[in-house]
Amino acid sequence: MTTQRTTGVATCTVLDMMTFFARPFAELAPEIDLITPEQVTDATKVDFVLTFKPADDAFSPYPNLRAVFSVGAGVDGIVGCPSLPDVPLFRVEDPDQALQMAGFAAFHVLWHHRRMGDFLAAQSQHDWARRVGDQSPTLRRIGVLGFGMMGRAIAKALIALGYPVTVVSRSRPDHPLPRAVHMTVDAIDEVLAQTDILINVLPLTPATNGFLNAATFAKLPKGAALIHIGRGAHLVEDDLLAALESGHLSGASLDVFETEPLARDSSLWDHPGLFLTPHVASTPRHSSVVENVQRRLATL
Amino acid sequence: MTTQRTTGVATCTVLDMMTFFARPFAELAPEIDLITPEQVTDATKVDFVLTFKPADDAFSPYPNLRAVFSVGAGVDGIVGCPSLPDVPLFRVEDPDQALQMAGFAAFHVLWHHRRMGDFLAAQSQHDWARRVGDQSPTLRRIGVLGFGMMGRAIAKALIALGYPVTVVSRSRPDHPLPRAVHMTVDAIDEVLAQTDILINVLPLTPATNGFLNAATFAKLPKGAALIHIGRGAHLVEDDLLAALESGHLSGASLDVFETEPLARDSSLWDHPGLFLTPHVASTPRHSSVVENVQRRLATL
Repeated sequence: MTTQRTTGVATCTVLDMMTFFARPFAELAPEIDLITPEQVTDATKVDFVLTFKPADDAFSPYPNLRAVFSVGAGVDGIVGCPSLPDVPLFRVEDPDQALQMAGFAAFHVLWHHRRMGDFLAAQSQHDWARRVGDQSPTLRRIGVLGFGMMGRAIAKALIALGYPVTVVSRSRPDHPLPRAVHMTVDAIDEVLAQTDILINVLPLTPATNGFLNAATFAKLPKGAALIHIGRGAHLVEDDLLAALESGHLSGASLDVFETEPLARDSSLWDHPGLFLTPHVASTPRHSSVVENVQRRLATL
Repeated sequence: MTTQRTTGVATCTVLDMMTFFARPFAELAPEIDLITPEQVTDATKVDFVLTFKPADDAFSPYPNLRAVFSVGAGVDGIVGCPSLPDVPLFRVEDPDQALQMAGFAAFHVLWHHRRMGDFLAAQSQHDWARRVGDQSPTLRRIGVLGFGMMGRAIAKALIALGYPVTVVSRSRPDHPLPRAVHMTVDAIDEVLAQTDILINVLPLTPATNGFLNAATFAKLPKGAALIHIGRGAHLVEDDLLAALESGHLSGASLDVFETEPLARDSSLWDHPGLFLTPHVASTPRHSSVVENVQRRLATL
């Protein structure tokens, strides 16, 4: 009996793919040979490319590609690549990653709503500083920008915690969440005006690039907070700093940045209203990446 | 037409009841006269007492009480009162308060699971300090002690966030949560041995007083964390400090204390593994307290 073998090339300009994926593929998908570009002996026998942010010519050597896989939930690092061939492009869809995102978003909603940072500051001063009456989740209106797998999981979790949630998506979703208010982008101004905590999980496209800017912030009510877990390029960082300085926004949680790692001399680090994390909101499980590749290859 | 009027006395040794409740009762329950003990002109006409922590003789003056109401979710401050008469004792059951508790617990689960404090510390150093791979909620087993309205809401929220949750209650609940593991107190050691984050919402009774002690902590796996949102008397504070010092516990979130406000010279304030909050996890909405009194009185 001969087993049909599949060959994939792992290549990326920002992640050392083999460090992360050599072992999961070897253990979970022995029928797949995952190799580096340097290890390719016959370029015509490469079936797929696994990547996150490919070099411009990353796909050029392989004439018989059947698919391209992103190891992330987004494909914005891949779609603009000049050598990307006309084959199916898949991203990872990992329900566990969506739950990681939901937990991360819920944490930051509570951080801003309950002003948890004030309690930490009071603790450092041995100060009891009790403040009650503002704890009801009904007191903070949540706006979720984006309704893919991430937006859905976040909205669902916050509804379970009692928050009123409005979701904004490009078109009316096929499967709306029963207890969410669903709006489309044409009503974005109306949504922003009624959002106390804005959570961004938009995909990065030319239309969404730079959307988190001064004009958008100005449409939020005074005192609103931002939780930014989309892509760095969504946010105009200087506009955010200005909105915090003016007091129009009360705070923000940022997990993604224009430049990563964030430069040591960035003015974001020290702003008291900011909670910064180093792009850790969620990552797909390695096993999900492997399983996703296997499942998609089987359909081609 | 004569309206049947009801008279309640608001009395408490730790809360200024009238500050909180005079207005909500006046606005929402005009058929009820809520007065202070000093305002009572005819003690035989007092129908109920509204309290949280009554003085020993708080109930003595009123021979015709029909009910006693706690303004909190617990009644431990009332049951031991020597003058408590043999009439129904009701606590507030506010679904909104349960959601406040669920959000607070979820925040602290994420705080410990995702080591959010490390990110804050790194931010203050302008240090990117990226760390991934530990984000899946499946990596932390949650144990919830207590399955009243609070325990149920907490368990439900954490299940929605993808955490494996085991609930411990005195007896098998009538309405178990479909995706929780339910255990009774006779299996407590088994549960503790498999709990990474322990959440305490037990009622305070002679059996649970001091339960969070060195022996209990020793049964948790090394590196476990505690979220204590029950009653101050559940916890032996020195035992917690010792468990943190030895490294057996990795951290704890405390919202309630043996003595409140916590003394300025308490050693709890400065321990790096501790996140302290001044008894703010949840409070019943004033409107719920009023509604609860109205609803219960109607059944008597």
